[in-house]
Amino acid sequence: MIVQKRLEQFRKYMDDNQISLGLIWEPDNQFYLSGFRAISYSRPIVTLIDSEKTVLIIPGLEEVHAAEKAKVDAMYVYYEQFGLRDKELSYMVHLTKLIQQIPAGSYIGVELDSLPSSVFMYLAQLGFTVVDVGKKITEMRTIKDAHEIELLKIAGRLSDLAIAESLKHARVGISELEFDTYGDRILLEIASIEYPDELIGYEDWTCSGIRRSEMPHLYSSTRKFEEGDGVVHSRQVWFNGYRAENERTFFVGKPTEKQKDLLKLATEAQRVGMELIRPGIMAKEVDIAAYEVFKKAGYGEFVNHRIGHGLGLSEHEEPYLRFDNDLILQEGMVYTIEPGIYVPGVGGFRHSDTVILTKSGSFAITQHPKTNE
Amino acid sequence: MIVQKRLEQFRKYMDDNQISLGLIWEPDNQFYLSGFRAISYSRPIVTLIDSEKTVLIIPGLEEVHAAEKAKVDAMYVYYEQFGLRDKELSYMVHLTKLIQQIPAGSYIGVELDSLPSSVFMYLAQLGFTVVDVGKKITEMRTIKDAHEIELLKIAGRLSDLAIAESLKHARVGISELEFDTYGDRILLEIASIEYPDELIGYEDWTCSGIRRSEMPHLYSSTRKFEEGDGVVHSRQVWFNGYRAENERTFFVGKPTEKQKDLLKLATEAQRVGMELIRPGIMAKEVDIAAYEVFKKAGYGEFVNHRIGHGLGLSEHEEPYLRFDNDLILQEGMVYTIEPGIYVPGVGGFRHSDTVILTKSGSFAITQHPKTNE
Repeated sequence: MIVQKRLEQFRKYMDDNQISLGLIWEPDNQFYLSGFRAISYSRPIVTLIDSEKTVLIIPGLEEVHAAEKAKVDAMYVYYEQFGLRDKELSYMVHLTKLIQQIPAGSYIGVELDSLPSSVFMYLAQLGFTVVDVGKKITEMRTIKDAHEIELLKIAGRLSDLAIAESLKHARVGISELEFDTYGDRILLEIASIEYPDELIGYEDWTCSGIRRSEMPHLYSSTRKFEEGDGVVHSRQVWFNGYRAENERTFFVGKPTEKQKDLLKLATEAQRVGMELIRPGIMAKEVDIAAYEVFKKAGYGEFVNHRIGHGLGLSEHEEPYLRFDNDLILQEGMVYTIEPGIYVPGVGGFRHSDTVILTKSGSFAITQHPKTNE
Repeated sequence: MIVQKRLEQFRKYMDDNQISLGLIWEPDNQFYLSGFRAISYSRPIVTLIDSEKTVLIIPGLEEVHAAEKAKVDAMYVYYEQFGLRDKELSYMVHLTKLIQQIPAGSYIGVELDSLPSSVFMYLAQLGFTVVDVGKKITEMRTIKDAHEIELLKIAGRLSDLAIAESLKHARVGISELEFDTYGDRILLEIASIEYPDELIGYEDWTCSGIRRSEMPHLYSSTRKFEEGDGVVHSRQVWFNGYRAENERTFFVGKPTEKQKDLLKLATEAQRVGMELIRPGIMAKEVDIAAYEVFKKAGYGEFVNHRIGHGLGLSEHEEPYLRFDNDLILQEGMVYTIEPGIYVPGVGGFRHSDTVILTKSGSFAITQHPKTNE
């Protein structure tokens, strides 16, 4: 009944703001408010919420799946097969019928940063006032409840097992992509034994060598590890939708003194951030504290991203740990702590762990050791 | 210089329609027109195209990556680190400056089905007329050139190797997710040897047993294969962005006569579709022909999706092989052929192959055998 509690909170917000209907488009938000997630949204799926009921507009091939998983009061199905050509064939027909039940001029709440412009234009043409509810849902998703935290802990532990296994296989001659698969496989083997009938997912990427590790975000390639490489390995694992992020920088063979020093520096910046983060301080304080570690050592100019992002159902979630964010942190928030530096000609250096804020501090759900060599 | 050719075609369209600026938001479209792809778009990335130049608005952590890959005339970078707090901190500042260079009232071309409503509202407020260019880019992407076809062929061959390896490990007691990893690993091992320094990606999912295979689209779970299971295994592999789809239905242990008959039927419907597809016929003819195979056998009501979708840079691409699509097919189009039936109490049955339309017919880039047991 977790979805029910979220809906109550959302409906109160709608009521307070005279919003007659919420039209939810973004897949993670739909999952959060309905319990249903599809593999693909190339056939539109829409969740509509009014003061009394939640309905789902859904393509025929998701009908059985949604009937099993979606915590909604009604489903409106559209079809695409010749044999059902007399039924509804477009999600827009259902959407129009459902919207026409509310008076023109009413407020419709949408996620302005996700809803396609074409749908926005359509609602505006029908005479509705379209207002944003995306920021409200983002705010609700920011604070994780006890159930969400349990799922995150499992994701964190699984990510540790995967990282450890991949690292065992780090050697000259293995490609980034092969290196990733060792962790993937052990993750799925263990999950299959310990969590039968649950949903597990992951993404990982590895940037090896000077040129590639200088870039914080790259898909793994078939490049093979070479002697002396610094490698930044990134991994997210999700358990029933909830994600832990786990990243480690390591060396193949013998690093230079410079490489060792820079990884020590990134590790120290991360330690400072992890020690500092707790309810009551501002998001920006964590970012600035980690930055100051790099700056004091003379490497401030090689920082090119914030210290961390919120985490939960999405790969990156607002609000961010960024130097210009005055947000006061609260219990139940989840953040990555991942200060990095990227030094031309030397490489990139970054560990990332996922921490959950408690009443008085925080704890990490990712625990793999941070060795410097 | 492939991007250059595409830009020429796109600029001609802009010119014909008095569009002063194209604002491209959708990641696959940006890759198509600029050669640049990021892992994450939670920090906005925008490609702007006018009659003379292409520019990229990009976050600081992608600066080195984009400088290496993006075929654009200029980059406008925004930053998020304390040390660069005097520089631009928001993509919107760059966007506004660039847009203000064109006269108010001009036409701006956007992808109306992808651009977030908030950006649309902003452009409209500035006095611009916002028109759609998304359908034009979709149309351009529909016809693959010789280079794209070479990439697709490689993706197809790699997907065959992966499917074959996973199928070797099909047995009672293995979970869906473990089954998937056998194919993933061989795919990446072979790719690492044969295509050093290229980008490979994949997604796969497996629906095993009656209840799960009744649903066409489910993420793999930790459910373990059982004696007599029918299993639908789906896989897409992409090579430098271009995707092949390869799906096989198979049985674990001994299937019933009913299971064998239904898989034969799905195989026959697919054969009919693959033999029929060629330039000059309508998209709907292929869909209806496959449907008729099921209907004639008395199973028409268990079809719940179209016979196939376009394929290339995106998981599903328009235009679709759907009974109400009068589009005339052309040389260079790429389609999946994947008729399926989903029978309550028995399970789902579907093979998918990817075909490329040639001058006179088509050929499949996925070749794994379709055994019925």
